Amino acid sequence: MAGEKKQVERITSMKEDFAQWYTDVVTKAELIDYSSVKGLTVMRPYGFAIWENIQSQLDRRFKQTGHQNVQMPLLIPESLLQKEKDHVEGFAPEVAWVTMGGEEKLPERLCVRPTSETLFCEHWQHVLQSWRDLPMLYNQWCSVVRWEKTTRPFLRGREFLWQEGHTLHATAEEAKEETLRMLEIYADVAENCMAMPVIRGRKTDKEKFAGAEATYTVECMMHDGKALQGGTSHYFGDGFAKAFDICFTDKDNKLRAPFQTSWGLSTRTIGGIIMTHGDDNGLVLPPVIAPVQVVVIPIATHKAGVAEAAMSLCGALTDAGLRAKVDLSDQSPGWKFAQNEMKGIPLRAEIGPKDIAENRCVLVRRDNGEKISVSLDDVCRAATGMLTTIQGDMYKRAYDHLHSNIRTASTFEEAVAIAKNEIGFIKTMWCGDLECELKMKEVAGVSSRCMPFDQEHISDNCPVCGREAKCSIIWGFAY
Amino acid sequence: MAGEKKQVERITSMKEDFAQWYTDVVTKAELIDYSSVKGLTVMRPYGFAIWENIQSQLDRRFKQTGHQNVQMPLLIPESLLQKEKDHVEGFAPEVAWVTMGGEEKLPERLCVRPTSETLFCEHWQHVLQSWRDLPMLYNQWCSVVRWEKTTRPFLRGREFLWQEGHTLHATAEEAKEETLRMLEIYADVAENCMAMPVIRGRKTDKEKFAGAEATYTVECMMHDGKALQGGTSHYFGDGFAKAFDICFTDKDNKLRAPFQTSWGLSTRTIGGIIMTHGDDNGLVLPPVIAPVQVVVIPIATHKAGVAEAAMSLCGALTDAGLRAKVDLSDQSPGWKFAQNEMKGIPLRAEIGPKDIAENRCVLVRRDNGEKISVSLDDVCRAATGMLTTIQGDMYKRAYDHLHSNIRTASTFEEAVAIAKNEIGFIKTMWCGDLECELKMKEVAGVSSRCMPFDQEHISDNCPVCGREAKCSIIWGFAY
Repeated sequence: MAGEKKQVERITSMKEDFAQWYTDVVTKAELIDYSSVKGLTVMRPYGFAIWENIQSQLDRRFKQTGHQNVQMPLLIPESLLQKEKDHVEGFAPEVAWVTMGGEEKLPERLCVRPTSETLFCEHWQHVLQSWRDLPMLYNQWCSVVRWEKTTRPFLRGREFLWQEGHTLHATAEEAKEETLRMLEIYADVAENCMAMPVIRGRKTDKEKFAGAEATYTVECMMHDGKALQGGTSHYFGDGFAKAFDICFTDKDNKLRAPFQTSWGLSTRTIGGIIMTHGDDNGLVLPPVIAPVQVVVIPIATHKAGVAEAAMSLCGALTDAGLRAKVDLSDQSPGWKFAQNEMKGIPLRAEIGPKDIAENRCVLVRRDNGEKISVSLDDVCRAATGMLTTIQGDMYKRAYDHLHSNIRTASTFEEAVAIAKNEIGFIKTMWCGDLECELKMKEVAGVSSRCMPFDQEHISDNCPVCGREAKCSIIWGFAY
Repeated sequence: MAGEKKQVERITSMKEDFAQWYTDVVTKAELIDYSSVKGLTVMRPYGFAIWENIQSQLDRRFKQTGHQNVQMPLLIPESLLQKEKDHVEGFAPEVAWVTMGGEEKLPERLCVRPTSETLFCEHWQHVLQSWRDLPMLYNQWCSVVRWEKTTRPFLRGREFLWQEGHTLHATAEEAKEETLRMLEIYADVAENCMAMPVIRGRKTDKEKFAGAEATYTVECMMHDGKALQGGTSHYFGDGFAKAFDICFTDKDNKLRAPFQTSWGLSTRTIGGIIMTHGDDNGLVLPPVIAPVQVVVIPIATHKAGVAEAAMSLCGALTDAGLRAKVDLSDQSPGWKFAQNEMKGIPLRAEIGPKDIAENRCVLVRRDNGEKISVSLDDVCRAATGMLTTIQGDMYKRAYDHLHSNIRTASTFEEAVAIAKNEIGFIKTMWCGDLECELKMKEVAGVSSRCMPFDQEHISDNCPVCGREAKCSIIWGFAY
């Protein structure tokens, strides 16, 4: 028992069972533990450290663009949730209700926030007075609760962590600009930090946020060709403001309703990272958001000077600004290799007696297995360079996967035939009618992902109804 | 309306009504807004920015001492909360219960976490295997809910933000060391960041945390002489581990129960900062945790070059590593002075046409009103030095207030007489019996704050019962 070394954990291969592979990675890489309540999970240190890195990338960009963090209450009175009609219809069926406080039944039941538009509106109604107070650019880091029937770690939880930005503007134009500015920040973080290429676009009315005038999205593609929504940004017009009686005195002394946006990105994106970059050996993390960028593994630790050399190498890498750690545990190097591969650490540095004698170490890339031997005098520069290369290569591979798996269909039959293979996205024209969207779902099984900003002309007509097409649209199976 | 300038807001003086003064500061300094649910508040950008600064000071120290952040579920099944007898007795009467998920009644009701010991224990029971996994040093940033009857912003909310550290160790000694190590981090952050001197000590059994073997505290004194608990650290022994069936295989191959700690510090400390440093002009913030350290106020902005000079000064201060902002709003300088005093900004820089002509500006200290004129060539060095002086002076004033308001009593009558004046702490000896503690509460109205680490010999006997004293103890009225 105590003397027994841990066994290398095996995971299901992606080909054999993609869903089981995903679950295996999530648990064996020590990202998540299940709690006794379905859909509520524990984010373990390694999983949470990934989220902290995503947080810091986003938070920095939010602050650079003038946003301030706030904290709204956890609970929303039922009457407040009901103030905006579309919003309550969208969320009420899936909220958790607090009905008792201590031993007493509450006079009005309170829902655990599924999203906080109503709370921000209540607050703004209190504090907004004049045009001088605008814009109000707020963000909140928190968890929200949605009582889903089916749940999967990161992808669909009854509770998940996210940020929700909420802003208020004097004019519709400013609010619309904000909506797109924040979508661009999501695209930037997805592409440049998570190495996940995205398709920017607008959601159909069917798929938009409950209560929004327009919802924009960045859509990603997973290894299995399915879509994952990376982040969404909503323009509300002045609908909520009017429902919540929010107004301000404008420069011309008239009372006006302000215009509103909200935008959110959640821990779902960690599920996206796993399914964009992972392989049959486990997680593969992009260096920018990896909690540990380089793991130093000493070979033959019992030999004099090896542990010291490993620690010294780790210290040098840390001093060079890299997130490095050394694995001095009493497990075998083979176990350590496998375990650190499972955790997706981008770069492994091996150092043993022979390396030390030659003043060298071996660097091994997690993403493609490439090995090089470098002088210890040059290792920091080499490791830093390799991490940049890894980040770029990971993005490029994901980009190629995405773009080689978007298929264009001019007819309904073509679209249905592509969907039968259940691989990738389908691009068609669309007339803009809900009926055609529903028919695609019913017959082909795919939902609309977005009307991409990057519009193109495929044919003149909607392939479903044959009427004149208004735009091109992307369809897919989705998480 | 639109053309109308804002009026300087007046607040109640501390002498007139301390409680009202506190409420005025909390709202007029824009820290808090009330929601429609009693005890649930909005932390506005300025209030939350203070918390972010406290968070970053603590989080850095937690990580330096090897702790990792995690995220546990928000909800605890009733059966899980009940596993540790003392713990459930302490918390069950004041929790909020979720009983419905969507339209359906839940099979078991779930409480919104009032604290997360039970969740950490459930997780550890899943993942702990061998001595190699120990210690587990975890921390969580989150909000918790306790359904209090009386509520006050920051001081007592039905929801509040905090961090809760939870650790597991192979031996009792290690766990005890951890408990005191974390208490020392709280003392460090209170004294060196919040400029709040503390008394370190141990809580009596009556005042300790539900389920703990020992609770340690750092106690602060407010302007009105009342006590506020700055942070607490608990040693649990192996009680929870046994209740939750957590064990590990030790080096000698035997199964053992691990030893546990938890420790927490909350947004209550912001209430403490307000009541330690505030004055009749509003908030006074210690520079280390002030969201804005220097506010630059241009005088006569309509004159050519003034706004530019103010912005350039602000840029120079920012480049020098200070948190500076410039107030270019169209309010009068007088309004700006008052508003930035209300917000407790440590240093004000005034710059007008005459200053510009002389290449100077005026720096004004928030804490004592001291004004100096400095050359713009030297302003960054001067401001940085003044902020350090302010931080030190604020600590010293609070230290003097604390130590000049601790009164020693050798007899019960003396203690009761001091308590009648309702000012400051009372130090006596104590026999250790609950009965004497209850009698002090009943007759003198004070509760035990702690048995200070810094023990002294006042007399041989307990002033309440006359029996042999075991230790010295500090009493006070408390928030």
